Amino acid sequence: MRADLSGVFCAAATPVLEDYSADAKRLAAHCRQLLKDGCRGIALLGSTGEANSFSVSERMALLEAIVADGIAPDRLLPGTGVCALPDTVALTRHALSLGVSTVVMLPPFYYKGVSDDGLVDAYSYVIDRVNDPRLRVVLYHIPPISQIPIPDAVISTLIARYGQVIAGVKDSSGDLEHMAGLAETFPGLSIFAGADPLMLPLLERGGAGCITATSNLAAAQLRRIFDDRGNPDAKIAVQVAQARVVAVRTISSRFPQIPSIKAMIARRYGDDGWCALRHPFRSLSTEQRQIIGALLDELDADERASA
Amino acid sequence: MRADLSGVFCAAATPVLEDYSADAKRLAAHCRQLLKDGCRGIALLGSTGEANSFSVSERMALLEAIVADGIAPDRLLPGTGVCALPDTVALTRHALSLGVSTVVMLPPFYYKGVSDDGLVDAYSYVIDRVNDPRLRVVLYHIPPISQIPIPDAVISTLIARYGQVIAGVKDSSGDLEHMAGLAETFPGLSIFAGADPLMLPLLERGGAGCITATSNLAAAQLRRIFDDRGNPDAKIAVQVAQARVVAVRTISSRFPQIPSIKAMIARRYGDDGWCALRHPFRSLSTEQRQIIGALLDELDADERASA
Repeated sequence: MRADLSGVFCAAATPVLEDYSADAKRLAAHCRQLLKDGCRGIALLGSTGEANSFSVSERMALLEAIVADGIAPDRLLPGTGVCALPDTVALTRHALSLGVSTVVMLPPFYYKGVSDDGLVDAYSYVIDRVNDPRLRVVLYHIPPISQIPIPDAVISTLIARYGQVIAGVKDSSGDLEHMAGLAETFPGLSIFAGADPLMLPLLERGGAGCITATSNLAAAQLRRIFDDRGNPDAKIAVQVAQARVVAVRTISSRFPQIPSIKAMIARRYGDDGWCALRHPFRSLSTEQRQIIGALLDELDADERASA
Repeated sequence: MRADLSGVFCAAATPVLEDYSADAKRLAAHCRQLLKDGCRGIALLGSTGEANSFSVSERMALLEAIVADGIAPDRLLPGTGVCALPDTVALTRHALSLGVSTVVMLPPFYYKGVSDDGLVDAYSYVIDRVNDPRLRVVLYHIPPISQIPIPDAVISTLIARYGQVIAGVKDSSGDLEHMAGLAETFPGLSIFAGADPLMLPLLERGGAGCITATSNLAAAQLRRIFDDRGNPDAKIAVQVAQARVVAVRTISSRFPQIPSIKAMIARRYGDDGWCALRHPFRSLSTEQRQIIGALLDELDADERASA
């Protein structure tokens, strides 16, 4: 694991206004809250952030607005990987120009069944074109959505070619054994769980933390787990925090996940503006929001009862 | 089927230069040859054309160059569907601004498991924002790559909402029954086979033609099939043409298809410059090209022998 790259990173949702444009003000306020909650950083414009539903210029404008609003660039890990590599280069260079040096990079994801060599070529093209020694890349392995896994052989070749530029892997396979395998095979990389409940077991097997959706709602609990997992005096507190993380994640999976996360953020802030999404997603129905609200109320009541 | 939208359309490959930029000159020359071969039009910047590996501005510049080079806009059906709908709007408006009114439109394809309503929302957003009565949309159903099928219910809703703007479907499912089902369910739409060997059986069941990769190499034969399929005096000529189409398609599937199509175009024109591809694809090896060349030589020899 890299000493300078570990902790709880939130894959922040991106609020949108009525005209579907990104709402930088709401997002900056949310980022500030997430940092207060205990996040080490914000992995904005990732899958949960509907990044690929925004154009390159919209993504650049949003990142600029967040930095201008005072969120420190070294706390930001934007997603920059798209299908067209010139755009991946442009987004990555733009992040660096703002002082944001660590990015989470999807492989090009339109064509399926891509060869290992082709994936190495793609990442190499981007890193060579960006050509900036400050760059740190977190490779983004998310086969359920991208359908393009990043095999170990590709990671090995990239490390041999680019050294410390290859900083980590966000593993959203949902498979703990795969994540732990990466941590074992690549001890110099920071391996992040893409699913909140798996951060704790991954940390125990050499992982670096998480980059996740549920941290929009349970970052304080994740931070507690991260800090106190080895502290014998905090065993119960860690268990309680983990139970909350698992429960919130389960509730967020009751309906489509990204609309659910947004509905839950709306409830958190008492701000219905958070419920809107870009197409092809739809906001949860009032009934669905009520079901989620009731489940969260029940969870809160249970926690109070056992406290 | 729409009377004004039928025939053989080539999903043209996009030649690239050594710096990976699109080679508009080579592409315009290829388009001219394809029209001479008998294509009704050129579906450039589709899957075979590596469209999603090019940025929005590169795609616009390429389409402009092809029109400027003298290819008639009403012969062009560019792909304009990308993940970020503002870009789909921009690409579609840009095509219309050049006099190109018919486009082949992928649904947004990053997120998987999208609802029917979400797909309708996405296409509606684009059509409403483009807001041009000249627009004609060919919906692009290619589940093996996009992973986002376009269900009949989505098509019905879009037809009810937009009438003749919804002009057809390119069906690259590889499933003849699905294509024929679309032609039966939507007799007012032009249904195109995305696989060359299936154009003939689809035409016999109400289809409008094809939009395909092998037509980069066998457009003359496809045109023969299209024109003479009902002519009892041309039965053998149609059979011979179909056999050639099937054989060329089979050869193109011996190795990864898009690199193979490009290698076969290189052989056709005696122009190795055609072999280059954008990442994440790799050009065929010399050995692979020799195997394909030998298979094509054998096919030519067989045809001469039986002529």
